[in-house]
Amino acid sequence: MCELLGMECNVPTDIVFSFSGLALRGGLKGPHADGWGLVLYEGKAVRSFLEPTAAANSPLATFVRKNPIKTLLAIAHVRKKTRGRVSLENTHPFVRELWGRHMVFAHNGTVRGVRKHPIGRFRPIGDTDSEYAFCALLHLLDRAFPEGYPRSQHALWEKVAELGGRIGREGTFNFLLGDGRHLYARCATKLSYIIRKAPFRQATLADDDLCVDFSQVTTPSDRVAVIATQPLTRDEVWVQGNSGEMWVFEKGKLRATLPSR
Amino acid sequence: MCELLGMECNVPTDIVFSFSGLALRGGLKGPHADGWGLVLYEGKAVRSFLEPTAAANSPLATFVRKNPIKTLLAIAHVRKKTRGRVSLENTHPFVRELWGRHMVFAHNGTVRGVRKHPIGRFRPIGDTDSEYAFCALLHLLDRAFPEGYPRSQHALWEKVAELGGRIGREGTFNFLLGDGRHLYARCATKLSYIIRKAPFRQATLADDDLCVDFSQVTTPSDRVAVIATQPLTRDEVWVQGNSGEMWVFEKGKLRATLPSR
Repeated sequence: MCELLGMECNVPTDIVFSFSGLALRGGLKGPHADGWGLVLYEGKAVRSFLEPTAAANSPLATFVRKNPIKTLLAIAHVRKKTRGRVSLENTHPFVRELWGRHMVFAHNGTVRGVRKHPIGRFRPIGDTDSEYAFCALLHLLDRAFPEGYPRSQHALWEKVAELGGRIGREGTFNFLLGDGRHLYARCATKLSYIIRKAPFRQATLADDDLCVDFSQVTTPSDRVAVIATQPLTRDEVWVQGNSGEMWVFEKGKLRATLPSR
Repeated sequence: MCELLGMECNVPTDIVFSFSGLALRGGLKGPHADGWGLVLYEGKAVRSFLEPTAAANSPLATFVRKNPIKTLLAIAHVRKKTRGRVSLENTHPFVRELWGRHMVFAHNGTVRGVRKHPIGRFRPIGDTDSEYAFCALLHLLDRAFPEGYPRSQHALWEKVAELGGRIGREGTFNFLLGDGRHLYARCATKLSYIIRKAPFRQATLADDDLCVDFSQVTTPSDRVAVIATQPLTRDEVWVQGNSGEMWVFEKGKLRATLPSR
């Protein structure tokens, strides 16, 4: 199993605090030592940092923490392999172009029977079920909206939820998906979120004594949604997801909670 | 205009020395301050480092130089924008999946009339002629070999050369293309290469006093091809390309020189 982390905001925000918590679980406080990745949007494109090694003692992960890059939307992952060998090809998050924008995907769980779904033009580069599931999701989205990024956001949200349910039916399909504008978070077994907004307070990492007083680094209109496999802080109240439910975040707000079965 | 750098080898090699030379041209010794990128293959997948800022004073570029990653195939680029604004979306090299592998592309020049070429399923994310040309190249390659990565390498090489000539006919289409196995280098106006092999010697950067004695960091069977817009060293003999010619490198050898008109 793996751990997921997503962040979606209304003002460019750095993910250092949450990523530090996740990175600790990548081989130091957790068993997820088989790779890590962090993908940050800037407009419709992303920059990505990926390594098929433990985040906890990665110089690149340390660099990313010490040189924060602000973003409106980020997805991160630490990997404990279940299927697929340890390699860069199998390191989440996966990135593909669809509708002239980068789409980003990270998964926790295993997806039995995933290879019966069509993937069309999207071919996996590695050999994980996760990347295959992402290819199937993109293919089915592309087929549903062949004209490009849909004008109706609601139609897109509902389609993602429907396809998440369809592809994940026989497996454990907790995922984070980014389209540069929304963060979609599907809960199969375990996923939590928190929205930080004014009045901002202090928060302390669950796995470390690292503590941030968000009131010192924010303005009153800031909204930051953070989604994680397990709550990353010990002194905040996180919302637990229900199985077969998908959240849609936009501009730091939970815009929809949709059935995804 | 921009500067290109490619490296293709028979043993994993770090690109630090050449990239240092390129990075100097990215805003310090050269006018190419509008972005830089470095993409390194590991198997069929890549890791990429991209920034829409000058390489010369980039902490990330410094990190990459101080924490060398060995690879068999790398493509780098420093950008001086001609068309397309300064943004991450417009930063080379561009990466797309084709045939279940990452394809990587960087371009120097402008490609007039590029938008008359079909791009099929490949949509540009940014607004450069370069990315559009890459999309056209991928679409036409996909159409020529719909079954996947061609068994006949020669057929693939010749197709890349032919398409490079077709897309670049009305413009200046110096490019580097990687498919994880080969490095293709098309010369329209300016491109040079060198193959370093035993007996290895010392080399000094053209733009700096940085000097490496390659005999200290290599074994006798190593072969490293380096391709650049302009020779990066002042004490080695580089081969200059001819207009409308494409080189194919594999395992540190020049495997073919093909017409590309």
